[in-house]
Parts: sequence; C-alpha cells; structure tokens
Amino acid sequence: MRILVTGAAGFIGSALLRRLLMDATIAEIIAIDLAEQPFGWSDPRLRWISGTLDAALLAGLGEPSFDRVFHLASVPGARAEADPALGRRVNLDASLDLLQWLAQSRLRPRVVHASSIAVYGTLKEAAVSARTEPRPATTYGAHKRMVEIALADHTRRGELSGVSLRLPGIVARPRPVSGFGSAFMSELLHALAAGEPYVCPVSAAARCWWLSRKAVVDHLVLAGAADICGPLQLPALHLSIAEVVDGLAQLFGAERTRLVTYEPDERIEAVFGRYPALDARAEMALGFAHDGSVAGLITHALAAG
Amino acid sequence: MRILVTGAAGFIGSALLRRLLMDATIAEIIAIDLAEQPFGWSDPRLRWISGTLDAALLAGLGEPSFDRVFHLASVPGARAEADPALGRRVNLDASLDLLQWLAQSRLRPRVVHASSIAVYGTLKEAAVSARTEPRPATTYGAHKRMVEIALADHTRRGELSGVSLRLPGIVARPRPVSGFGSAFMSELLHALAAGEPYVCPVSAAARCWWLSRKAVVDHLVLAGAADICGPLQLPALHLSIAEVVDGLAQLFGAERTRLVTYEPDERIEAVFGRYPALDARAEMALGFAHDGSVAGLITHALAAG
Repeated sequence: MRILVTGAAGFIGSALLRRLLMDATIAEIIAIDLAEQPFGWSDPRLRWISGTLDAALLAGLGEPSFDRVFHLASVPGARAEADPALGRRVNLDASLDLLQWLAQSRLRPRVVHASSIAVYGTLKEAAVSARTEPRPATTYGAHKRMVEIALADHTRRGELSGVSLRLPGIVARPRPVSGFGSAFMSELLHALAAGEPYVCPVSAAARCWWLSRKAVVDHLVLAGAADICGPLQLPALHLSIAEVVDGLAQLFGAERTRLVTYEPDERIEAVFGRYPALDARAEMALGFAHDGSVAGLITHALAAG
Repeated sequence: MRILVTGAAGFIGSALLRRLLMDATIAEIIAIDLAEQPFGWSDPRLRWISGTLDAALLAGLGEPSFDRVFHLASVPGARAEADPALGRRVNLDASLDLLQWLAQSRLRPRVVHASSIAVYGTLKEAAVSARTEPRPATTYGAHKRMVEIALADHTRRGELSGVSLRLPGIVARPRPVSGFGSAFMSELLHALAAGEPYVCPVSAAARCWWLSRKAVVDHLVLAGAADICGPLQLPALHLSIAEVVDGLAQLFGAERTRLVTYEPDERIEAVFGRYPALDARAEMALGFAHDGSVAGLITHALAAG
C-alpha cells in the first residue's frame, strides 16, 4: 500500500505518520510538509518532501499512484481570518491542486480530508450532525467547506473516493498554542497538569467539544479504510470547562482546581464556549469513537506522541 | 457611477451592457471579455479589455474603484463537465481572483454574481427556493456554489456587498446553442418561430423553468441596486414543453405544433425536464419578476438585443 500525507510534520500529521509506520502492510509513505524531515524519523519506507504544497510541487512527483491520501496541510483559523490571501493559498488553492492532481490517478485513491467543525458557522442550540447545513462564518470555515464540495465532486466523477472528517479542536496542542481560537482548551490542560496558574478566557460553564490527538489519529486511520464517502462528523466529548477541571483534579490532585481563575471574554465564549450537543450516532455506528470519559480524554491528550 | 462587467461579450453580458449604456448616471464601464470589443459598440464611457480574466489581468488594472460589478464570465455546464480543469480555471479560480482583487477596494463595491440553479443538484418534487440546501451534482454547480460561499465570506468580512443570483436556463440563446444541457429550450423556440421542424429530446410533459434574457437583465440591474446580500432564486415560469409549444402556436399559427416530434432522451429529461415548482416569493416581493406569461416569455426570448 502506498500512502501520501500532507502536513506530515504538524501536530496531527506527525502522530498519524508514527502510527502508519507501525503498519507493516504499508510499502511506501510520501510525506509532504513545509518543514524539513524531523530528526530521528528515518524509515526506509518514508520519503519526505519539504516544500510548499502546490501544483508545481505535485507535478514534480510525476503520476500519482497512491492507495490512500491523508490531506492535513492547513493554516489555522485565526491566522486565515487575519490573512485571507494566505488562507486561500494554503487551505483552498493547494487543496484543489492536490485533488486535481490525484484525479489523474487510475487507482481512484481514497482521500481523507481533514475538514473542520468551522464549516457549520455560528452554532445554535440544536444538536449538530453531518446533516446540519453548513453556513461557514469564518474564512477558514468557508475554505474548508469549498474543499468538501470539490472533493465530493471528484468523488461523484469517479476520480477519487473522498471523505471529509469534520474535526473539532484537538487537544492538547503543544505550547505555545497560537493561531487557534480554541487554544485555551490545550492551554488549560497543559497548565493544570504542570501545576501552573491559568487565567481561563471562558467561563466554567462554557461547553466545548473535546477530542484527543490519539482519538483523531484513530479516526483518520479508520476513515482511510472505511467504505463511505462524503462529510462525517467526528464524535467528541461535550464537556464544560468545570467538568474538565474536575477531571484534571481527580488525576493530579484537588488543589489544582484553585489554579484556575475565570476572566471570560465574551467574543471567545460566544464562538468557542457554547457548543450544543453533537449527534455523531451515524459515525459511531461506523466505529468512530470519542475518548470515552474525561479521564480518557486527559490521559490521551497529555500523552507524548 | 463606475461599473465593471465580466463576460461582457456574452449572451447575457452584451444585453446587460446595452442596457447599462442607456443609464446616464453611469460615468464609466470597464468591460472584460475574452472576445474583442464588438463592432459598433463605441461609447466614450466604455473601456473594453480583451483577455483572460485572472489575477494578472486584474493587477494590470491597478486599484479597483467600482461601485457595481456584474460577474458573468463563465464556461457553460456541459463544457465544464467535459473539461473540469477549464471549469476550475474560469468558473472558480478566475472568480476568486476577481473577488480577492475587488476586496482591496475601499468602496465596498456591490458585486452581482451570476450563479446558477445548478447549485441545487438533483431536484426532488419539493418546491425549490433560495433556502433549499445546495447539493451540486455537476462540476459547474460545484464551482458556482464555491464562489457563492467565497462571495458570502467577503461580504461577511465587510469587503464586498455580494449577491448571487441563481439563474435558470435563459432563452433564447443564439444558434447554434452549444455547451448547455438545456440547449433544447432555446432550439425549440428558434425552430418553431422560423417554421422549421424540431426533434425535441424531452417529452411534451417535461417541465422546465423559463426566463428570457430581457427578464434576466432586469434582474441583474435590480440586484445591482438592491440592498440585500446572499443567494437569491430568480423567479421563472414553470412551464411544460406542451405549454410553450401552444404559446408558439398562438403567436405563429396552429400548424407550428406539427413541426415538433418528440424523441425523449431519459438522461436529458431526468436533469432538465423534471423541474419542480419554484418558490421565489421572497425575491418577487423585492421586485424580481418573471416574464408574466407564455406569450411574454416567447416575445421577450425572441426579441433582438
């Protein structure tokens, strides 16, 4: 099996790559990233390509011949909102270039696109599922939705077998966490685990969708093998900040709760702190699973690798 | 007032341009098209730019300073389906380049984007309105939907004031009508008006949405001035082929009905001959109107200019 991974040096990409390299049925992995190959990642099956993902780089690779493609390369939402031309280039144009290049393949490759819950836009009180009509309210969400549409069209044309996974904020991103509006979710976990004080920009009652990197790598691998196309809403735990702080206290000691002070910023709370319930029953029936419990989430989120 | 029109030499663009040039409040019109300026169209207010619409051409125009923009440049659906790379370049990338260039403007220009009913995809029996969830089922429809999303995002960002008009098939396109799956609608009108036999590829009972070029130019001008953003579903007459043939017989003589033979092609009938009712009440309340009657439609459709 031949695999392509874009954004391979990233937070999720690097963990996915480590997982894939443990699979003996994989003969070759082409990894693309802006960054150089990380030190110590040598594996005879891994070919690392450092550069900007675009039509020119892809043309240089010749004819595509992959069984599975994991497209993770992306600039985060806050950065795309501040620099929409950069967002277009990376999150939209490079993605479309990739799909167009892959569409030449005779293998009808499986393409797993890391989309985002940002496609839904402003969330109401009703539970969200993959059938919720997307109304993106950020440039990042607009571009992700446009790529979902392009991937669905290549799938309809019979050129690709595409699935778009709508990822929530993934924890715990390494510090310093920048460019993400949901950075506080990772910062909270790191700070309390390290016994440091933390000023939380949302209230204790703020509710978010929580998913660990370990769980999202499980999802990517499963989506690569699953026989379903179109958008999927990844399941995630629907927890308040207070519930996560309680979970941290149970793992690290009750005194940790006193490290948190709340200074809610209404702009952050409105966008990242009032998530409704998530209805991912259809995806759970396919085997996609969240971290199971607050303890599972925290343990997975803080695990190395 | 300064105006930009793309696709200015096209079937709709040329009629729009003639209409705009009758408006004395317009100080300057920049017209862009692949084609050269048509002979006899000289007007001191008209500046014609012949070339491929892309970022390089736009950069050559300097800073954008338009009050209104009519974006009509497009390759038709059947051609985009056969050559999706061309479809992407013209219908998607060039449109995104235009919007990105216009977004630099300090005037927050009004942008009227000629979208399409192709964004809806396969139609069911339920009436269609601008609130129907788009599920494009052609590459053309996918690209039009992606541009709607991009325009809505520029509007949300406060850079543009965008409206996407979802156009049905417009009649009567000049013969030979090529590249359009709905070409039979125009061919039928031309043939019977000219007293020529016509082999109709859909049944007499096939129902389509009908709108004349005159009516769509009315809509474009109205949308340029209207104070509403987002997608709009243009009203159109919902008529069977038999009703249109009857209308032609009333205008040109009863014997014309005998010129039509029906050889329905299920593939064409399924996509272009089973349109449900159209619910454009919201748009009609804003002043958008269809051709009023079969007789009005035929008269408008066959009028010169």
